Amino acid sequence: MKKKIDNIRAIFFDIDDTLYDSTLQVKNARENAIKAMKEAGLRVTEEKGLLILEEIVREFGSNYPYQFNELLKKLGYKFNPRIIAAGVAAYHSTKLAYLVPFPDTVPTLLGLRDSDYKLGVITDGISVKQWEKLIRLGLQHFFHSVIISDDVGYEKPDDRIFKIAAKSIGYKPYESIMVGDRIDRDISGANKAGMVTVRILKGKYKNQKPRNEMEMPDYNIKNLMEILEILKIERKR
Amino acid sequence: MKKKIDNIRAIFFDIDDTLYDSTLQVKNARENAIKAMKEAGLRVTEEKGLLILEEIVREFGSNYPYQFNELLKKLGYKFNPRIIAAGVAAYHSTKLAYLVPFPDTVPTLLGLRDSDYKLGVITDGISVKQWEKLIRLGLQHFFHSVIISDDVGYEKPDDRIFKIAAKSIGYKPYESIMVGDRIDRDISGANKAGMVTVRILKGKYKNQKPRNEMEMPDYNIKNLMEILEILKIERKR
Repeated sequence: MKKKIDNIRAIFFDIDDTLYDSTLQVKNARENAIKAMKEAGLRVTEEKGLLILEEIVREFGSNYPYQFNELLKKLGYKFNPRIIAAGVAAYHSTKLAYLVPFPDTVPTLLGLRDSDYKLGVITDGISVKQWEKLIRLGLQHFFHSVIISDDVGYEKPDDRIFKIAAKSIGYKPYESIMVGDRIDRDISGANKAGMVTVRILKGKYKNQKPRNEMEMPDYNIKNLMEILEILKIERKR
Repeated sequence: MKKKIDNIRAIFFDIDDTLYDSTLQVKNARENAIKAMKEAGLRVTEEKGLLILEEIVREFGSNYPYQFNELLKKLGYKFNPRIIAAGVAAYHSTKLAYLVPFPDTVPTLLGLRDSDYKLGVITDGISVKQWEKLIRLGLQHFFHSVIISDDVGYEKPDDRIFKIAAKSIGYKPYESIMVGDRIDRDISGANKAGMVTVRILKGKYKNQKPRNEMEMPDYNIKNLMEILEILKIERKR
């Protein structure tokens, strides 16, 4: 049975692969980093370099600042600050270049704002880093509430982070929608908290299959704009 | 008595305030960070904000990553990731924007290269960070040797870092020129090592007075291009 849409007053969004293409961003940042390191003298094929980088991220986490040091070590190189710096510069420049919203992100947020919905963000990560993303995306002024795991002490899919978010914006979970790409985090946790759930089929998790009832979203969408249809908002723009 | 110029085969450069305007870069990065934090809700005058930031850099060092956290603390604020992220984003964008060589840096390096001098860098700092500067400045391919305190274990004005640099490039210290802005580090150490010393009068240390013989440069220049005159190189470009 579908949850009620008429009650909805607040819409919460995940950031990565929901508001912008973080899968493409990371892919291109890593590729450009490997290319730059090769130009600076690293001898490795692009394919092998990328595989090792992915291995390092799995092992040390995505916020580990010494990924390229580790890459050199795994390839049998001594510490080489020139090659590492070439990778770091290319990686960061590419990350910045791809920190732009999906084409329909801003029109969707404008449509929701103009229909008087309260907007929020629920995201896992380091709070300064997640805020920096919102600021560089130019989206920070849309949101009445930004809830980050680092600040509240709970991570998705813990239902408490969703309940805290709803409370912070002044509504109940059942008056809220959660939009996100990950069924095991966004959808599962928001369902448990009692929110209406919308899965956006973008990024590297788009082919993931629900393993249980909690991972089943109320709605599946391919583009953010479809939220306006779900809420029966007429598109003015 | 002036040291001999006829023997010179290698020229070493400091990076900050020698190859690019790091004083202006840091000044503008801090100002833009304070402005962005004010826009994000921080209540402080620009003057006071800058004074406190300078105090923090003196206390914690210029590579301290939590300068803005500390600023908020000193102003009686609780941790606020939104304000901090606004500062961080503005600071880094400004630093990147000002990471360009002085107008006469590239013409000077080209002139020296075309006259078959070996070129090097001697700099204090974290090696990946200093390499990243050279790469973003687009100068990395000029240098046969880049010696960074972090890698060799000695900092300016220790004469050993200058001796290591000369040896790495294949010449004696007396066959080398050191160009830098700081008499207490670049000039003092290079004099002790036996190099010919050129002080460039740029940046925040340009009015510093020598306190002893070792801090007296062999030459004072206002623009990098004057090195070509010292070496009697005809300008072709």
